[in-house]
Amino acid sequence: MSVSPLSVGLDYGTNSCRGIVVDTSNGALLATHVFNYPHGEKGILLDKKDHLCARQHPQDYADAFDTIMLELIAHLKKKKIALPRICGIGVDTTGSTPLPVDKNNTPLAYLPAFKNNLNAMAWLWKDHTSTHEALEITALGRKMRPAYLALCGTTYSSEWFWSKILRCAKIDPKVYAAAHSWVECCDWVTSYACGIINPHQIKRSICAAGHKALYHDSWGGYPDAEFLTMLSPQLSVLRKKLPQKAFASNECAGYLSDALRKKFGLHHTIPVAVGGFDAHCGAVGSGVGPGTIVKIIGTSTCDIGVSANTIGSLPGVCGVVPESVIPKMTGIEAGQSAVGDILNWFVEHVCKQDASYHATLTRAAQKLTPGQSGLMALDWNNGNRTVLVDAELTGLMIGQTLHTTQAELYRALIEATAFGAKKIIDRIKEHGIPVKKIIACGGISQKNALFMQIYADILGIPIEIAASEQTCALGSAIFGALVANVFTSAGNAQKSMVPKSVISYTPNKENTKTYAELYKIYTLLHDSFGTNQPKNSLFSCMKSLLSIKKKALT
Amino acid sequence: MSVSPLSVGLDYGTNSCRGIVVDTSNGALLATHVFNYPHGEKGILLDKKDHLCARQHPQDYADAFDTIMLELIAHLKKKKIALPRICGIGVDTTGSTPLPVDKNNTPLAYLPAFKNNLNAMAWLWKDHTSTHEALEITALGRKMRPAYLALCGTTYSSEWFWSKILRCAKIDPKVYAAAHSWVECCDWVTSYACGIINPHQIKRSICAAGHKALYHDSWGGYPDAEFLTMLSPQLSVLRKKLPQKAFASNECAGYLSDALRKKFGLHHTIPVAVGGFDAHCGAVGSGVGPGTIVKIIGTSTCDIGVSANTIGSLPGVCGVVPESVIPKMTGIEAGQSAVGDILNWFVEHVCKQDASYHATLTRAAQKLTPGQSGLMALDWNNGNRTVLVDAELTGLMIGQTLHTTQAELYRALIEATAFGAKKIIDRIKEHGIPVKKIIACGGISQKNALFMQIYADILGIPIEIAASEQTCALGSAIFGALVANVFTSAGNAQKSMVPKSVISYTPNKENTKTYAELYKIYTLLHDSFGTNQPKNSLFSCMKSLLSIKKKALT
Repeated sequence: MSVSPLSVGLDYGTNSCRGIVVDTSNGALLATHVFNYPHGEKGILLDKKDHLCARQHPQDYADAFDTIMLELIAHLKKKKIALPRICGIGVDTTGSTPLPVDKNNTPLAYLPAFKNNLNAMAWLWKDHTSTHEALEITALGRKMRPAYLALCGTTYSSEWFWSKILRCAKIDPKVYAAAHSWVECCDWVTSYACGIINPHQIKRSICAAGHKALYHDSWGGYPDAEFLTMLSPQLSVLRKKLPQKAFASNECAGYLSDALRKKFGLHHTIPVAVGGFDAHCGAVGSGVGPGTIVKIIGTSTCDIGVSANTIGSLPGVCGVVPESVIPKMTGIEAGQSAVGDILNWFVEHVCKQDASYHATLTRAAQKLTPGQSGLMALDWNNGNRTVLVDAELTGLMIGQTLHTTQAELYRALIEATAFGAKKIIDRIKEHGIPVKKIIACGGISQKNALFMQIYADILGIPIEIAASEQTCALGSAIFGALVANVFTSAGNAQKSMVPKSVISYTPNKENTKTYAELYKIYTLLHDSFGTNQPKNSLFSCMKSLLSIKKKALT
Repeated sequence: MSVSPLSVGLDYGTNSCRGIVVDTSNGALLATHVFNYPHGEKGILLDKKDHLCARQHPQDYADAFDTIMLELIAHLKKKKIALPRICGIGVDTTGSTPLPVDKNNTPLAYLPAFKNNLNAMAWLWKDHTSTHEALEITALGRKMRPAYLALCGTTYSSEWFWSKILRCAKIDPKVYAAAHSWVECCDWVTSYACGIINPHQIKRSICAAGHKALYHDSWGGYPDAEFLTMLSPQLSVLRKKLPQKAFASNECAGYLSDALRKKFGLHHTIPVAVGGFDAHCGAVGSGVGPGTIVKIIGTSTCDIGVSANTIGSLPGVCGVVPESVIPKMTGIEAGQSAVGDILNWFVEHVCKQDASYHATLTRAAQKLTPGQSGLMALDWNNGNRTVLVDAELTGLMIGQTLHTTQAELYRALIEATAFGAKKIIDRIKEHGIPVKKIIACGGISQKNALFMQIYADILGIPIEIAASEQTCALGSAIFGALVANVFTSAGNAQKSMVPKSVISYTPNKENTKTYAELYKIYTLLHDSFGTNQPKNSLFSCMKSLLSIKKKALT
């Protein structure tokens, strides 16, 4: 009977939290449990008066932790697996999802005074109420601290830490005043697990701080007081309560609290890793490493890579953060703002069909060869996150005849997202970071072989599909094992714990050749409509249409 | 009881022929009859092995003439209207639809040796088997006789006279050798009506010859022998059998033959007008005149205008032919290769719905205001006939988001065709030809008020809808009256015979302003993708996609 250590990984998603127990010696999944957040609509607290609002109740995070741990332990007991084999716990969450806490690290949401106040809840990543604040931060950053903006690809998002907090400071002074500090979800969960009751003692995630809160060692961590004061004097007060240093997930955030150990019936010391973001942990659980990019392909796409060397600059790539993905390497996060969403739009809004129609269109699109539709599209229906970093870009389709079919349009949209993906990979490679393999995970990668083959053909790089269906939780479990010192490096942990992929897509030479020709046309359109060069009047097209649209709607 | 003269108009369409009897004193419709061509599929002879082939059996033309005349006369008799009041006959047909005849003016299709040979039939306007020959003629014309090509907008079409005849000479020497001459459908019908048994005596239509057979008085009529010999020596043989001069439709082609008069029970002399093309006669029957453009809006659009003055040049406009529409004026024919067809494509191929869905989309599009969709399209799904004269252009749609609806796309397509229409009107006006009123006819103009209002708003010109539903047959009847000397001019005939329109669309000032802004964007896209200027790399986009498509399909 094996006595290898077991690690627990918890993946806090948008609607639910998933927990797993993994054997560190072979990656075997020994137990799994999913907890659906009970609050709000599928775990999201909505505001009927503002569709941009999306909040979560922190009670759900604590309940998820307790319930999942109890269930996982029950599973292990049932299988007669000794509980002392549990060596560590790792946690990943969505982000940026900050929540206000009082000086005892109690979420304001728990306090009777704020129990019905949405602003006292966790501000979920996809909350877009802070659009105006994001513009303010972007404008000031460009003027005053261009280095800050360079870190996040020149545009600060409404989905991020400072936008949300600035918003709260403006619209809800009571909540803001009551908040001793603001804590990212991933950090609050680890602090909860470790029973930390002083916000100053929370070890904050560099993944969250570096990608969403303008944290960088080179300027001493979080943005300086002068900058924050310009945005709002209140922010500089908060600044003082934030730590000097953030940590990678191979650092120990603390140890499972006595209270929780008692509750779970665990009698040994269990380290908890510093939290991380879901996409980054998912990349680790998929096998990211030097030369390998992990693509998480869903409604949007997130590309995660690492570089063993320091990266000077990577223009247009949203996040380049040392230690953010794998310790001792520089993490790279890029992404496309809509991929599956574009196909969903086509099926739901253009074809007016339900989701099952994707399969119908895919079957028909499968019969087409590259180039035969004469179509070319730009994948900008939701703007362009990387490499143009411009939300005010829109879609384009060219080449329609009187015979153009739904399947041809559908395939052209898939191809457009793949060309967009190639732009990202090209940008990364141009800056000396090798990309030899792609590992894909996420819904589409599992379900749509045509989509994946088109990507392999267009990127000209072999694509493997991550073998685990729970790459995020697995990545967290890897960090759980690392803080328990089961492995000497993340790479070794991956070798042992990440299952080998069985499906892979190899570029078809002939197709790659045709797509190389088509890519030239994509690039021409991409640069003509997406870059503001002198004498390029087409750059104005999408902008003018959007401004006329705005006028027409007011 | 009125004793005003009555005129007969016959309109030979693609699937049927329609005949009417009109009171010349007030335009009242006294009798009407439709004859569906019995041969082939809805009158069209198809070739299963070649979907580009579309022919007609000339027997249908003769049978249509006889049947319709007998039916119309029966109607008149029933109403106790005296037959001697019939003063003249006018005929219009599709074109270019040439057919080979022997030296007795008998269609080769009538001869036992050729009765099953598609090449001996009439080559219907929409027969596209001569694509290669059209390219040959265009290439040679550009090199050797640019003036010829200027007449037809620099590109000779596979739908036209010489392409079809050159094709026959190449692929069916037996038919070609047996053909003493080739006669346009509109000319053959009048020769049949008049019992002309010598092809040399046929008075040919300047409308057909000028627009489709490179006929122009300035170079002595049809193209010269040197040019035709370069294409094929056989064409120069045919050249010798063609007349020196072609005629306008106010000329008498001859008189109804004794045989037919006997058959119809008519005892007086009845002049038959020289034939014309349907669109041109339709314009006359709609009320075309100086300052007024008639738009025939259907699957494609034909714009017909006239100028009282000589026109130097009108680049990009397919046809500028003296005498072709109204005698003593210069006829102008422009057009868009797809209008209704683009909307049909959207409904049938993109929405996968039946024709009734146009009404659904129109209702939804009606609720939108100009500009609010943020969309802009180019109306080139079937190339651009005027003003770019480029079949190798394709569609474009820009501005899509993840929320773009079917109705928004549909409206953007309507608007695109209207912007394309504005390009034509602008071109005509830029060359000193006033355009103060538009009269629209054709299916869409009767059925779709939103479409027409968008056109009025975008063109910024009031649009009236032709009151007659049979404008082509009415135009022919006007020429029947003119050859009977009932009127001294076409203008006078129109005043008396064309009914006043009751529906009209006035530009909405606010909308016209917004559309003027949008038109700038249309123009930018139009010029960027449609014109080959130095440093304009986007012109290559659609061309490259088409050439890659061609390669992919072989």
